[in-house]
Amino acid sequence: MSDWRTPEAGRLIAAADEVVGYDLYLDLVAGLVPAAKRTTFPLGQETERCAYALEQAGKGRRVALISSGDAGIYAMAALVEELVADGQVSDAASRVPVTVAPGISALQAAAARVGAPLGHDFCTISLSDLLTPWSAIESRVRAAAEGDFVIAFYNPVSRRRRTQLADARAILLQHRPADTPVMLASSLGRPEENVRYRRLDALQVDEVDMLTVVLVGSSNSRLAQLGEGPRMFTPRGYARKIDGDLA
Amino acid sequence: MSDWRTPEAGRLIAAADEVVGYDLYLDLVAGLVPAAKRTTFPLGQETERCAYALEQAGKGRRVALISSGDAGIYAMAALVEELVADGQVSDAASRVPVTVAPGISALQAAAARVGAPLGHDFCTISLSDLLTPWSAIESRVRAAAEGDFVIAFYNPVSRRRRTQLADARAILLQHRPADTPVMLASSLGRPEENVRYRRLDALQVDEVDMLTVVLVGSSNSRLAQLGEGPRMFTPRGYARKIDGDLA
Repeated sequence: MSDWRTPEAGRLIAAADEVVGYDLYLDLVAGLVPAAKRTTFPLGQETERCAYALEQAGKGRRVALISSGDAGIYAMAALVEELVADGQVSDAASRVPVTVAPGISALQAAAARVGAPLGHDFCTISLSDLLTPWSAIESRVRAAAEGDFVIAFYNPVSRRRRTQLADARAILLQHRPADTPVMLASSLGRPEENVRYRRLDALQVDEVDMLTVVLVGSSNSRLAQLGEGPRMFTPRGYARKIDGDLA
Repeated sequence: MSDWRTPEAGRLIAAADEVVGYDLYLDLVAGLVPAAKRTTFPLGQETERCAYALEQAGKGRRVALISSGDAGIYAMAALVEELVADGQVSDAASRVPVTVAPGISALQAAAARVGAPLGHDFCTISLSDLLTPWSAIESRVRAAAEGDFVIAFYNPVSRRRRTQLADARAILLQHRPADTPVMLASSLGRPEENVRYRRLDALQVDEVDMLTVVLVGSSNSRLAQLGEGPRMFTPRGYARKIDGDLA
């Protein structure tokens, strides 16, 4: 939502000759970008979208390539760097100076809504096995379970992928309590925003869609019923002992 | 830096009757806050700082409690929730509605400066053993190494803690290549900003201070020498195969 857009991102978009992105994401900045400056690509054409943006910039145009959340987290920035590093774009495009503007990622937006579940060590794991073998994802989930990290799952399910989240839940239940708090968040920052809490053993795949952020607590995470409703947080321990190291 | 401050955070600070924080962080928002509205606490008094902010809010004042980066990531939001949940503040203070405003955390700022090292699964680990036993941190580092996560180390060293980062490096070297790229970043967004790259086996504790962000690549992370200088990124695989799941 615009309340989370940094001044840097707004300035870069406003200064662009052309704004490139997935059509749903360009709708989010519609007020900032005249229709004549927009070039949209459908979902699935990520490589084409990034290559196009680089080639247009190689012609001397100022191009803003839009991601939702943080462009550097499961988004287009890594693909842009890869296309340039691998020589998959023209010489002119490969010499384009690239600025990555950080933003508020979905896990941060979700966390802020419920308290502070990311207050101590956490990790993010994409459950999409379209580009990563499931065995590699599974071993990453196992490592995160053994390391007792708070976990943010990205791409938890899709229309075709229905088993991964349940498999991940089964692995986690071997390492942390059945009542570990889990938060499900969708449409953050929009009117239809929806936040729910579940126990880890009661997490159901069918109540998660591809745009839901799933945040699983560590064994230290707590769900407190306060006056204003449930709040989830992961203490760092300050309240028990003062940390003189870093604020 | 102000170019990364969200409109939400700026609005909440401007609307506050009182702005509470560690003095160094309040200097960052000095232009927004008249001196008469500021209440500063020294480093180390985190509990006192949060309790004071809650008690002042309990008296009906609008209070902004400032963290650098994201208030929900290794910062004050979790301590505020914990003090309320544990009944460590007055009844009035415990009924205060709390809004957590997300922000750009140091790992995102660092990542954006160098390319997209957080382009695939990553984790954050605090190496401070003041509140967490070293054995727990060590097992978390081992899990992150086994899971092949990109790792952002927070609190990598302090004046007294000189061994943890070297121990973490030794664990990581058992699981990933000696030439795994590591990025060191300090003073991000400020004139004295300093970014360096090292191979994992050449990472030296003495070139890291307590305000340095240390980002260690996964086995898939790459450091490319491009026209504009080195760029570090972790591919998700888009350039090899199209992901139709999520942009």
